[in-house]
Amino acid sequence: MRAEIVSVGTELLLGNIVNTNAHYLSKRLAELGHFVYRQTAVGDNAKRLSEVLKEALERVELVVITGGLGPTQDDLTKETVAKLFGLDLQLDGASLQRIKERTGETVLSKANQKQAYIPEGAIVLPNDVGTAPGCIIEKGEKAIVLLPGPPREMKTMFEKYTVKYLEKHSSEVLVSKVLRIFGIRESQLAGILKDFFESYENPTVAPYALEGEVTIRITARARGKSEAEKLIMPVESEIRKKLGEYIYAEGDTTMEEVVIELLKKAGLSISTAESCTGGLVSSRLINVPGASEVFKEGVIAYSNESKKNLLGVASETLRTFGAVSPRTAIEMARGIAAVSGSNIGLATTGIAGPGGGTKEKPVGLVYVGLWLNGEEKAEELRLHGDRNWIRLRATLHALNILRKALISQSK
Amino acid sequence: MRAEIVSVGTELLLGNIVNTNAHYLSKRLAELGHFVYRQTAVGDNAKRLSEVLKEALERVELVVITGGLGPTQDDLTKETVAKLFGLDLQLDGASLQRIKERTGETVLSKANQKQAYIPEGAIVLPNDVGTAPGCIIEKGEKAIVLLPGPPREMKTMFEKYTVKYLEKHSSEVLVSKVLRIFGIRESQLAGILKDFFESYENPTVAPYALEGEVTIRITARARGKSEAEKLIMPVESEIRKKLGEYIYAEGDTTMEEVVIELLKKAGLSISTAESCTGGLVSSRLINVPGASEVFKEGVIAYSNESKKNLLGVASETLRTFGAVSPRTAIEMARGIAAVSGSNIGLATTGIAGPGGGTKEKPVGLVYVGLWLNGEEKAEELRLHGDRNWIRLRATLHALNILRKALISQSK
Repeated sequence: MRAEIVSVGTELLLGNIVNTNAHYLSKRLAELGHFVYRQTAVGDNAKRLSEVLKEALERVELVVITGGLGPTQDDLTKETVAKLFGLDLQLDGASLQRIKERTGETVLSKANQKQAYIPEGAIVLPNDVGTAPGCIIEKGEKAIVLLPGPPREMKTMFEKYTVKYLEKHSSEVLVSKVLRIFGIRESQLAGILKDFFESYENPTVAPYALEGEVTIRITARARGKSEAEKLIMPVESEIRKKLGEYIYAEGDTTMEEVVIELLKKAGLSISTAESCTGGLVSSRLINVPGASEVFKEGVIAYSNESKKNLLGVASETLRTFGAVSPRTAIEMARGIAAVSGSNIGLATTGIAGPGGGTKEKPVGLVYVGLWLNGEEKAEELRLHGDRNWIRLRATLHALNILRKALISQSK
Repeated sequence: MRAEIVSVGTELLLGNIVNTNAHYLSKRLAELGHFVYRQTAVGDNAKRLSEVLKEALERVELVVITGGLGPTQDDLTKETVAKLFGLDLQLDGASLQRIKERTGETVLSKANQKQAYIPEGAIVLPNDVGTAPGCIIEKGEKAIVLLPGPPREMKTMFEKYTVKYLEKHSSEVLVSKVLRIFGIRESQLAGILKDFFESYENPTVAPYALEGEVTIRITARARGKSEAEKLIMPVESEIRKKLGEYIYAEGDTTMEEVVIELLKKAGLSISTAESCTGGLVSSRLINVPGASEVFKEGVIAYSNESKKNLLGVASETLRTFGAVSPRTAIEMARGIAAVSGSNIGLATTGIAGPGGGTKEKPVGLVYVGLWLNGEEKAEELRLHGDRNWIRLRATLHALNILRKALISQSK
């Protein structure tokens, strides 16, 4: 069914909380074959909520509402929906009993009793982790699902009691596959994948930007999961042919996870020597559980002195080429590999700004040095943006350079 | 003005990302005296977006749209708004120039050029951290603000270029002062500041949690900024009396900025030796512009070998007390100070998990070692949460321990 999500709560409109419910429900509804056309957040106000619901029911068949089922005066979702449909609220004995058990009270306060009233004819959705039950109201071809606002209650009620109902009323599923890309701009991607973005309908192909990276989402609509996956497969393989090693992972897998996995497979140890990235490369690597199997040590060599003392960069190199140079990057990488006895040394040196740039060596100039079992190289990056962004991008580039080197040496 | 927020992006409706933009903007608009009546998320679809906008403009005076300003075919917010108002899109020279600088390309691709087209007569909002500019379109009594979707770009553009416009169009101002707290739990804070949270109405006092920290926001409503500040002042000073050194900064000032500032004032140099935090302490310090004046070097000594070789931690210390011990933390701090010739050595060693914990030394046990011109100490932390969280909290604690030491030695 076509669906909309309505989130009720003034706290959303004041920006006191993030609307994670709409996120969760959108994802789950899509997986269940109900495509969400709109999400709306509205305050604890009967008139405005009523307007939102009326409009939504004109557009779609399924409306899922969260929030406003609780015991206070503010909670008016059930009352509003009942009025909209001309339904009475009736005391539901089973819900009353559950609330008594849950609160440990034998005589309920009026506020708590209020929660056990359900619009007549509705399907009751029990609340196993809170007091307010939810319900499903059917009206002709339309259905309204009422769920509580607290995310834990909402999720439990959705998964345990709502999914089955929604599965029965869906003839198809949506399956998405996300490809993570690095080393190519979104605008370049737009050129390479133009046809995919513009003409594919099932599956659809769309880009979206993550922090410092780009992803491609392939989404297929079909009667079942495996059928959807069959639609995705040939398109994915065409995209993979076009983008090759720009694709570094799928789904939620991070660049550092890919690198640690490659290092483990190859049985290689690594150490890092960082100047401009100041520990970001090492901290990303170490954040992968089990990184200690391959990560030996890291050095943050910010000053020339420490580049010499800790890493053995030659004074002459620094004098002749400067700290930000391919030569220094290589000597840093070689130095940390030697000092630590690692197979791999990975180094960064650059100008993150805002100060320190010159015409010859502008802010954003970064060299990544890599020493891999005797083979050494430096790559030059020309990055743009503020200090934080340059450091983030330099870190991802350094990891990506290592990733590509590990892939090519494994061939 | 009465306001609505419209978030554009199919990724929101598919549940690929959480709509943090609507949260951020709702909060900021409220603070600026514009109350949000509705939030809507809609897909990358011109017809549906156009419907949403038309409806919103019938209800309120101010509509803030995020998303759909990028280079791809999918990005159609500007085009849709222009069409709705019967405006042409015109090439904006300044925006074109900025995109060239940002991308480093002298001849822009069509996709990148597209971003520089702005509806005629609109106020351009420059993008200092990305390529797509935003804009404000005025139409009679109504205003539409177009901001980019990536949160960092949206926030920067909003704060730097949109706030002033919105302030001019509001009869009241909300002025907030944020106090940043570290070292005390939100639940403890709720006890200490109970009266403030519950009974203050103008200004209001409310806590809210940042990543790994807590802040207190004092918000006054008044006709002008100075009037609001006068309301805030006495409440702030009462809170400061109660919380003392738990308050480490105001507003957006970060812990690392405070520490770098204290180091500069005291004329002291620092080096770091990290195990469980793996470079997070150094990367935070180095992210402060000008950190090179005080930061000498850092070492990530993850293995016992590197603790011995790089930092001179005694084999006996490691054998007797283990790598995660106050003694090791102190020897790491002393070692890095000696190796680097710094006034201060700051060290972390601990168990970030998920593996590696024992009954005696559970996951979350971290020692911070500090060596300051000959004085040395270790502090024990017992942290809870996942690997990422433990490392983040350990990093903040290490910086806070240094901050307190610097304050007390300056007295």
